[in-house]
Amino acid sequence: MHAATREELLTVDGDRLWASLMALARIGATAKGGVKRLALTDLDRQGRDLVVSWGREAGLAVTIDKIGNIFMRRAGRNPALAPVVSGSHIDTQPTGGRFDGNYGVLAALEVVRTLNDRGIETEAPLEVAVWTNEEGSRFVPVMMGSGVFCGAFSLEHAYAAKDTEGLTVREELQRIGYIGTQEPGDHPIGAYFEAHIEQGPVLEDAGKVIGVVPAVLGLAWYDCVVTGMEAHAGPTPMPLRKDALLVASRIMQETVAIANRYPPYGRGTVGMVQVHPNSRNVIPGQVKFSIDLRNVSEALLTTMHTELLAFVERVRRESGLPIELERVSYYPPCPFEEGCVAAVRAATQALGYPSMDVVSGAGHDAIYAARVAPSAMVFVPCKDGISHNEIEDAKPEDLEAGCNVLLHAMLGRAHRVGNG
Amino acid sequence: MHAATREELLTVDGDRLWASLMALARIGATAKGGVKRLALTDLDRQGRDLVVSWGREAGLAVTIDKIGNIFMRRAGRNPALAPVVSGSHIDTQPTGGRFDGNYGVLAALEVVRTLNDRGIETEAPLEVAVWTNEEGSRFVPVMMGSGVFCGAFSLEHAYAAKDTEGLTVREELQRIGYIGTQEPGDHPIGAYFEAHIEQGPVLEDAGKVIGVVPAVLGLAWYDCVVTGMEAHAGPTPMPLRKDALLVASRIMQETVAIANRYPPYGRGTVGMVQVHPNSRNVIPGQVKFSIDLRNVSEALLTTMHTELLAFVERVRRESGLPIELERVSYYPPCPFEEGCVAAVRAATQALGYPSMDVVSGAGHDAIYAARVAPSAMVFVPCKDGISHNEIEDAKPEDLEAGCNVLLHAMLGRAHRVGNG
Repeated sequence: MHAATREELLTVDGDRLWASLMALARIGATAKGGVKRLALTDLDRQGRDLVVSWGREAGLAVTIDKIGNIFMRRAGRNPALAPVVSGSHIDTQPTGGRFDGNYGVLAALEVVRTLNDRGIETEAPLEVAVWTNEEGSRFVPVMMGSGVFCGAFSLEHAYAAKDTEGLTVREELQRIGYIGTQEPGDHPIGAYFEAHIEQGPVLEDAGKVIGVVPAVLGLAWYDCVVTGMEAHAGPTPMPLRKDALLVASRIMQETVAIANRYPPYGRGTVGMVQVHPNSRNVIPGQVKFSIDLRNVSEALLTTMHTELLAFVERVRRESGLPIELERVSYYPPCPFEEGCVAAVRAATQALGYPSMDVVSGAGHDAIYAARVAPSAMVFVPCKDGISHNEIEDAKPEDLEAGCNVLLHAMLGRAHRVGNG
Repeated sequence: MHAATREELLTVDGDRLWASLMALARIGATAKGGVKRLALTDLDRQGRDLVVSWGREAGLAVTIDKIGNIFMRRAGRNPALAPVVSGSHIDTQPTGGRFDGNYGVLAALEVVRTLNDRGIETEAPLEVAVWTNEEGSRFVPVMMGSGVFCGAFSLEHAYAAKDTEGLTVREELQRIGYIGTQEPGDHPIGAYFEAHIEQGPVLEDAGKVIGVVPAVLGLAWYDCVVTGMEAHAGPTPMPLRKDALLVASRIMQETVAIANRYPPYGRGTVGMVQVHPNSRNVIPGQVKFSIDLRNVSEALLTTMHTELLAFVERVRRESGLPIELERVSYYPPCPFEEGCVAAVRAATQALGYPSMDVVSGAGHDAIYAARVAPSAMVFVPCKDGISHNEIEDAKPEDLEAGCNVLLHAMLGRAHRVGNG
C-alpha cells in the first residue's frame, strides 16, 4: 500500500487482488510469464468459469447475454436503480500479459469482496462485467461484446465472425457454454468504470500512481502508396530517378511533424512499410506504408487530416509521382462523462495518490460502454509502458491503489449506505 | 543503319548480327520474351556450342581455359602480337533478357565475320571472348570467369562455389564439357573492348546512339540498423517515443542528398528496408536498411563515405538512438585506359553517330579485364533503361551502330592491313 493512503479510508485487500490475478493468469500461462487465452477457447471457458465461481462465492447473481457478456450483480438497497458497473475482459492476445483486461475484472470483483467483508450496502446495485472478445485476436471486430451491447454492430454480424479455422463466434460461444439468453444491451447501466493498466509510458515516466482518464483518443488510419520507377541503382543518374522511397520518407517524417504540431495528445506513427522490390541495388519502384494519426478532439484530428492531405498533395506536385492516400479506418475521440471522471478524480485525491490526467491511446470496452452510460476509466502504470506482450508487468501496490480508487469512485456513484 | 553513318566507311552486317542474337536467344527462351540460361547448365552448354560452332565456321581457333572462358582467335599478320580481344558473357539472370552479355559476344563475332567477308587482315590477332558466369545468379562470385582470369580470386575458390543444389562449379564445368586446359590469365591480351547495352536510361533520355564509357563507377554498400523502442502508437506520447523509422528516414533522405551533392556521377540509393515489428499501430522498434553509394573516382566516393558517417553520427547524437553502420562491400572505381577510350571515341566520331560519355553504373567483365589489359566499353541504348528483366529490349539499328563502333575501335587498335 502506498504511504500516502489515508488510514481512515476504506481500502481493498491488495494481497487478495494479487492472488486472484495470479490464479487467473495460470489459465493459459506461457513459458515467458505471459498468458495466451484467446476468446472463446477452452482456456477462455476455464477463465470464465473461475471468475464466475468467485462471483458466486461472493454472493453475486450471474447473468449472461447472447454475445457471452457476463454481469455479476451485488444487490443494492434500491433494486429499481440501474447498477454501477465495473469490469473489462479476460481474453488475451496470443502473446498477452497477465494484467490487460484481467485487472479490470478482478479489481471490480475485489471492490465487491471488500464491501462484503465490511457488510457495506449501497443504494444502487453493483455489477462486475466481463466483456466478450475485447482483443479481437481470434475474431474480429475487436471489443466485440461491448460493441454488440452498445449497438455499434449487430449480434448477427458478431455471430458470423470466423477464426482462421472457419469456426464462428456463435458455434464457439455455444461450445464453451457462454451463449446466454439476455438480449445484449437489454441491461441498464447506471454508470461504468473500468480500471486498466495504462499500456503506455506516461505514468511511469511522470512517477504517478493513478491516471485519471478524461478521454480516449480518436484515430484515423491511412494506407499510402507511392509509385516510382524501379531501376538499377548503378546506371540510373539521380535526375532521371523516380525513387518511391525518397518521396515516401518525406511523408513518413511529416506524419511525425504533424503530430508534434498538436501536443500534448497528437500522435503520428508510420508502423508498417513495404518496399518493392526491396533489393539492395534497385531503386524502389513502389512503397506502401501505413499512417496512424490520433488526437483527443475531432477538431484537432480533422486539422491533422487536412494537413496530411495538403502535404501529400504538395509532394505529389513536387515529385510528379503518383501517390494514393486512403483513410481505411476512423474512430472518433471518446470523451468520458464529466461526472464519472470527477468521481475518479475525487477518489484519487481523497486517497492521496500521486496522479495526473492521462488520455487513453488504445481502445477499451469503456469506449463502447460510454455510448450507453456515463463512464470513466482509472489507469495504473505498467512497466516500461509495455503490454500486448508476455513481459507485461505491473506493481502490486499500484494495482491495489487503482482498485482503491475504483472502490471509492463506485461508492460515490452508488451511494454508500451507513458504515457497515 | 543510322542515316549519319558515312557510306565510305566499312560497316558490319546489322541483319546478320540481329539474326545471330535472335538465334542464341531461342536457347532458354521464356514465354515473356526473355531468356533464362543460367551459367553451366545444359542451356549454357547449348549456347556455348552454338557460339563456338559459329566461331569455327568463321575460321577461328578455339581455346578454353580452366574456368571455362572461351577465346576464339582470328590470326593476325604478326602472331607475336597480343590479340585485340572483345567479348562478354552468354549466361543470363533467371529472368534475363536477350541482349545483356549476348550482344557483346555476338558483336565481336560480327566484327570478325565482317572482316572475313572483306578479306581484311590485321597486324595483331583478334579474339572473341566468352567469359564464364558473369551474372552470378547460380554461382557466386559474379564475373567469375574474368575474375579468375585477372587474379581477383583463385581458380580453386571459383571451383568450390556451389549452387543451391550443392553442385560445384568444377563439377558443372566438367559435366557440360567446358573445363579447358589453359591456366586462366596465361593468355595475353593486347587490348580489350566490350560492347554492351547501357542498362540505364541515360542514352535514351539524351537521344544518343553511342555511349563512350570512360569508367565504371566504384561502389560502397552499407548495412544500417537503427534501434528504437517498440511501443503502442496510441498510448505513447511523441516526446517519449524512440521511433526507429523517424531516425532511419532521415538517413534515407541524406543518402540521396549526398549523391546529389556530387554530380554527375554520384549515386545514392536505399533499396532494401525492413521494419520491425512492421505493424500498423506499433512504433517501429528497429529499422534495417541498405545504403548504396557510387561515384566515378575514389576521392569522390571517399568524400561521400565521410559525409555519410558524419551524418549518421549527428543523427545518433540528436536522437540518442543506437545506429549501426557497416560497410559490407566495396569496389573501387575503374577508369578505362585512355587509349582504348580514345579509340572508341574516334570510331564513333568517324561514323558520325550521336554520342556522349556514359559511365557504367553496373559491373562488367571489362572491369576485371582492365586489370590485365588496356580496356574500354561501348554502350548502346536499351529500352527504358531496363535490363535483368525479360522485357529488356534494344533497337536493331542501335545494336548495329555499336557493332560498327566496335569494329573500328578494334581495327584502330589491331592495325588494319590494306583494304581487303
